[in-house]
Parts: sequence; C-alpha cells; structure tokens
Amino acid sequence: MAQATLTISSKNYSSWSLRGWLLCRMAGLDFKEVLVELDEDARQELLLLSPSVLVPRLTHGDVTVWDTLAIAEYLNEIAPDSGLWPADIAVRARCRAVSGEMHSGFYNLRSALPMNLKARHERFKIFSGARPDVERVKAIWTECMEASGGPWLFGAAPTVADAMYAPVCTRFRTYAVELEPELAAYSETVLSWPLMVEWTEGALAEPEEIIELEVEF
Amino acid sequence: MAQATLTISSKNYSSWSLRGWLLCRMAGLDFKEVLVELDEDARQELLLLSPSVLVPRLTHGDVTVWDTLAIAEYLNEIAPDSGLWPADIAVRARCRAVSGEMHSGFYNLRSALPMNLKARHERFKIFSGARPDVERVKAIWTECMEASGGPWLFGAAPTVADAMYAPVCTRFRTYAVELEPELAAYSETVLSWPLMVEWTEGALAEPEEIIELEVEF
Repeated sequence: MAQATLTISSKNYSSWSLRGWLLCRMAGLDFKEVLVELDEDARQELLLLSPSVLVPRLTHGDVTVWDTLAIAEYLNEIAPDSGLWPADIAVRARCRAVSGEMHSGFYNLRSALPMNLKARHERFKIFSGARPDVERVKAIWTECMEASGGPWLFGAAPTVADAMYAPVCTRFRTYAVELEPELAAYSETVLSWPLMVEWTEGALAEPEEIIELEVEF
Repeated sequence: MAQATLTISSKNYSSWSLRGWLLCRMAGLDFKEVLVELDEDARQELLLLSPSVLVPRLTHGDVTVWDTLAIAEYLNEIAPDSGLWPADIAVRARCRAVSGEMHSGFYNLRSALPMNLKARHERFKIFSGARPDVERVKAIWTECMEASGGPWLFGAAPTVADAMYAPVCTRFRTYAVELEPELAAYSETVLSWPLMVEWTEGALAEPEEIIELEVEF
C-alpha cells in the first residue's frame, strides 16, 4: 500500500482543508495528516512544498494532487466503490455540478462568513453582497433534498457534494443564519456526522493564536 | 443518439462559455448552440432555464449539467477515448489540479483582465493585485511544458487543461502581457488551434452592443 499524506492548515479556519480531509476519509484512505500553520514562515514553507500555496494537497505513492475537486476525482479513481459520486450518470452529473458551484463560486459568502468553528455570532449582519450566495445555497440544498429524499444531498449516504457544503453548514451555525426546517435538518445531519464531530474536536483543540483572519467587508 | 444543446453567452466576453464549448468539441459531441445574450431580460430567462445563472450548461438526453468541470467529467464519461484527460493516473491528477486552479482561483486576473477577443490594449497597466495570478499562470505553464515537452500543456494533444487556460491566452494577447519565448509559443499554439480560430470568428461577428462589461479595479 502506497504511503499517503494530506497537507492541511488550520482545522478551525481552513474550509478547503476540511473538504479534502472529509473526502480522504470517505474514500477510506489511510493517510497521515501534515498540519501547516498559516503564519508567514509556514506560508513560505508551503510555497516550497506545494505546486501552489493552496491546501489541501495529497501525496500518495508517486502521485501529488492538489485542488479539492482534483483530489475528489483521484480518490474516486482509486476507490470507485466508496460512493464519492452517485451511481447514476445523470445524478452524478448534477452532483458534480453543485460541487463545482461551491468550488468556483460563492466568493462573497466565503469572504463575508469565514469558517470559524470556535465562534458563535448570534446577531451577525450578513453583508448584502453575500445574501444572494446564501439564497443560492438554500436553493441547491432544497432541490437536492426534494430530488433525493435526503437525508444527504444525494440520498442515503454522503457524497462529494456534502463534503463541499459541510463548511457552509458550520458557517450557518457560526453566524446564526436562519434555515427552513428541512434545511436545518440537513445541516444538523452534516454537523453530527461522525467525521465532522472528529474534525471539530481537532479544531476546538487548536491554540487560539494559530492564525489571524481578516474578515473582508 | 441523444440530442445535445450547449447554452452559452457572448463569444467575445464569456470565458466560461468558451471553455465549455471547446470541451464539447474536443469530445466530438454533436450539439446545438443556444446563445443567451446577457442583457437583463436574458439574464432573467437564464435564471429560469438553468439551475444557476452560470453558463455554460449542457443538456444531453435526460442529463442536464452545468459548471465547466462537471461538463468536462461528464464528457469524459461518455467519450472516454477522446483524450480529455491524460492516460496516466499521476499525470491525470496533475492535469485535474491545474484545471481546478483555473476553475476556483485567479479571481483578480479574471476581473482585472476580462476576456475581450475584439480588443487590443498595448499599454495596459496590470492592477498589482492581479500580478501574482499572472505569475502563477506562467509557473503552471512552465512546469507543465517542462514535464510534457509540449506543444500542449500535457503533451502532443490538447486536454481539459488547455481548454481551461485558453481564455487566459486571449487575455495575454488582448492586454499585451509579456511572455517568455516558450510560453509565447504555447499561447500561439492555443490561439492558432482550429477550434479557437472558429470560436474567435464567431466572437468578431458579434454585434458590438451585445453586452457592457465593467472592468473591476
């Protein structure tokens, strides 16, 4: 079995690290975590370690793959029976499309409501530019749940799409975004997912000073 | 054979439309183009037509898929011999990673140097925030060409990665971005690609008033 290493950054703040980690665990990959702290020295180090500064980055034998969706597709190739993508070709296409929307879009949501698992803001005012993003997320979740019957976006088990939107569930909790009952139930499904519980414990155990994030408004 | 339709917007301005169109042609798909003009009415219409306002959107029989990378993966599934992705698993992972970087990143490059096939700006001042993006594109191209030997990013024939970076080649031409000789040669390979020539002819034939784009600085 080839040795696998997943390079991630803060468990409290790095939503892309969370997605990559969930995907590796969903695929049943046996991997070692390497945590790169995002202070200046570490950022330099990551520049040397990785083809880009982005995390996550997976090395597995002689394969090096970065970018979350590329990692998902690689994992699907080496673990095709792990259910990362739905079995039906048309459903799989939709699953890739909503995963792709999270990957390429929601810039305002991501910058205005940064992931912060430790924080709770009960009276957070959502920047008006981020509201269409919140509405689009709700529309995607609603369409997926109506088509699949839940409890996950594409049915009985989590897929790549749930990993992609998992950080959004934490943001909606952190910033007290109101959700209709069926969407709140979906979010709770994600937040109580054993993998999410395990990741969150790691985040809560991180030293508070590990990183300073500036919220863009 | 199931009927296929690709919904795109302006050929002069819409870089995502270009990418989706290149991918469909590379896969040998027989499809009808539907051009949605991005004026207000059309934007409303697209909202109704599509799960998201984004183009491109491909319908093929009972499959509807939007988001450029999701379209690429769908096309690869129905036309696995078309060479959209490289044959070697490790090379394919790198190809997906650099394609994913273009899909999720380069926000400053995309907003500061919008695609405009008709325009030429010989003395364009690149917004400082976009310069690291330009440098990262050059680094990716250099690494790919060194590893593959060219003339395409991953060797003898174009892959998804070339479709993803094709709009960047047009931007570098439009805004007169200086390139090292080997990168200029790659850019010229892309710009003289028969598919690119065909698309560009369509762009040049578009009425000038089809869309007004605001350049963000």
